[in-house]
Order: sequence, then C-alpha cells, then structure tokens
Amino acid sequence: MTPHFQPVALHHASRLINHGPTVLVTSAHGAARNIMAAAWSMPVEFTPPRIAVVIDKQTWTRELVMASGAFGLCVPGAALTDLTYAVGSASGRAGDKFAQHGLTPTRGPVLGVPLLEDGCAAWLECRLIPEPHTERAYDTCFAEVVAAAADARIFADGHWSFREDNAALQTIHHLGAGNFVRAGGMWRAQPPTA
Amino acid sequence: MTPHFQPVALHHASRLINHGPTVLVTSAHGAARNIMAAAWSMPVEFTPPRIAVVIDKQTWTRELVMASGAFGLCVPGAALTDLTYAVGSASGRAGDKFAQHGLTPTRGPVLGVPLLEDGCAAWLECRLIPEPHTERAYDTCFAEVVAAAADARIFADGHWSFREDNAALQTIHHLGAGNFVRAGGMWRAQPPTA
Repeated sequence: MTPHFQPVALHHASRLINHGPTVLVTSAHGAARNIMAAAWSMPVEFTPPRIAVVIDKQTWTRELVMASGAFGLCVPGAALTDLTYAVGSASGRAGDKFAQHGLTPTRGPVLGVPLLEDGCAAWLECRLIPEPHTERAYDTCFAEVVAAAADARIFADGHWSFREDNAALQTIHHLGAGNFVRAGGMWRAQPPTA
Repeated sequence: MTPHFQPVALHHASRLINHGPTVLVTSAHGAARNIMAAAWSMPVEFTPPRIAVVIDKQTWTRELVMASGAFGLCVPGAALTDLTYAVGSASGRAGDKFAQHGLTPTRGPVLGVPLLEDGCAAWLECRLIPEPHTERAYDTCFAEVVAAAADARIFADGHWSFREDNAALQTIHHLGAGNFVRAGGMWRAQPPTA
C-alpha cells in the first residue's frame, strides 16, 4: 500500500461508496488487465459487505471479471477526473490502459486484483457472486467485499472527512456526458425528534 | 405538477440519479402510503430506463411496493436534508409520514404513485420488475422508469446545472450516520485525446 492508505474495517466498507461516487473498476485475468469507469454502483448489504455494479456485457472488463471472478472498485479523487473520463471512453481491448496512462496498480491482499491507490480516495477488493440472470438481464454484477482500504487523509476510523486541504482526493460524481460534480460541503442532519 | 417541475424525457431519466444522490422512496397501496430514504440506488439501463434500489425486506415501503408493483424515487434538495434523515429513521407503520411532516404529494401520471415535488429536484415514477431472487437475496428491487420530471431551475434539457442560486435544490449524498455532502462544484472533464 502507498503511505497514506490504511485498511478499512469490512463493516465500514459500504461507506466508501454510500454517497454514490463514480468508481474505477479494475480487473485482471492471466496476463490481461483492465481499468474502466463506472457511475452505476451501490452497496446492497452492510454485513457481509456486498455491492452491485453495472458492467456492460460488451466490455473487456466484463470478460475479465467473468473469467477471474473478481474485481476492484477504486474511488478516484477529483484530481483523477480526466483520467476517469478517459478510461471510461476507451476499451482495454485496444491496449493496456494502465500502461497507457502510466498507472502502477497495487495487488489486492485477498484476491490479487489490481487496485489503483495513487490519486484515489479508497478501494474495495470484490469477489463476484455469480448471478447469471441479473448479469444477463441488467448487466448487474453482485459481489462480496473481501478487503478495503482508504487514504487516511480523507477517510479514517470509518468516516469521510471532506476539507479544504484534501480537495484533490474528494470523490467525483458523474452527471453524464463528461460533466462531474465533486462531493463538497459536508454537514450533519438534525437528529430526528420524533 | 408544481410550477417549476417539467417532464424529463425518458432517455434522460438515468441522469437524475447517475451521480448517486440519496433518494426518497415513495409508495402507496390502497389507503396506505409511505415515504422513506434510500442511499442505495442506481440506474442499470438507459433505454428502456431501468433502475435498481435496495429496499429492506423488513420495511413498510417494501410491503407497499410488493403489493402495488410501483414506487417513486424522489431526489431531495439540500433544504430537505433533515426531512430525508427523519423519514429514513422512522417507520411508516407507526403513522403516515406524509401527514406527520406536512407533505403533500402529487400523483404520478402513469401509475398514480405519490411523488414529492416541493423541495425536491426531481422524481422518477417506477414500475417494479418482479425479481424474487434478487429481492430476497439482496433486497435489490429492479424497476422500469415510466415517467420522470425535474425542477427546471436545476435540471433542464437533459442536464443538471448546479449554481449558487439553486443551492437549496442541490442533491444530497449520505455518507452514513447522518452525515451528508452536497453535490457542489461542477466541472467538465477534459475530452480524452486517445
């Protein structure tokens, strides 16, 4: 792991994507590896931590995920917006996008999935839960999170902290067509009185 | 519809939740109706527009959705943060949360689902696609969007516009435990050059 990354307890893993950030899906099988962007992911269970992510059946990532049974969800910080859009706009079939963009992934501790840390706020290493029907009908892949980590400058002790000094790591949220918003001002809801 | 709400073309419906906002799930069956918060939802298909949302099997909303085959996803603006947290923290079995909070829903044009407009940025009226296995195993409900609308002050012509003058309508994203971020600074990714 890079210096600022720290493991995240599995019961806190859902919080890494609870607020709907756009993620990078990483995968590998044999000598092949890939990284793509995905705006459509969500947690589906706290414990065991499970997630769902839409991976189009025509993508190279989908082939690698089905072959390996594993993938990573990496949460890019704002400084990686252009990279996120770029890896979401080109197919890995045309060449190794890690190499093209000078990205050096680390290896997931449980499944060996390639995971991007530099510029990312967090990652989740995931084991596919085979669900042939939903994969086919909705391109929706379910998975269990088997390991997670985050950059402690923005997520520590189970909590996000969005501050002026970590703007480059703040999560990004794709509006469509290359337009993004950053998760900005953070505040606390009034506790319900009812 | 309230004065500022305008229909959203169905092929643009996914953009209303593409960036991962926390939503309010609205439902009704017979004389009963309910509104709850959900952080876990995502589009799964552009055309026909389809979405997935996690609705716990122990909730009153889940009972109403299974009985009626329909629900709404309403996208609350920042001014509704406390309401969102409140309706996410109490069960509708204990009383009508619309009445408790003084909310007057409109009726969905296709299915008659109760939909909240006042203070919301948008809504999607959804017809459940029965998927007993994923509903049971992951509390994940798939649905087709049959109508959508948005407050034209923040979403018009298929695009979000986050500006200083519409901060109260800007989408909110639940980090967990009552902490929210607002979708803030908006910017455009550099078009990929590859």
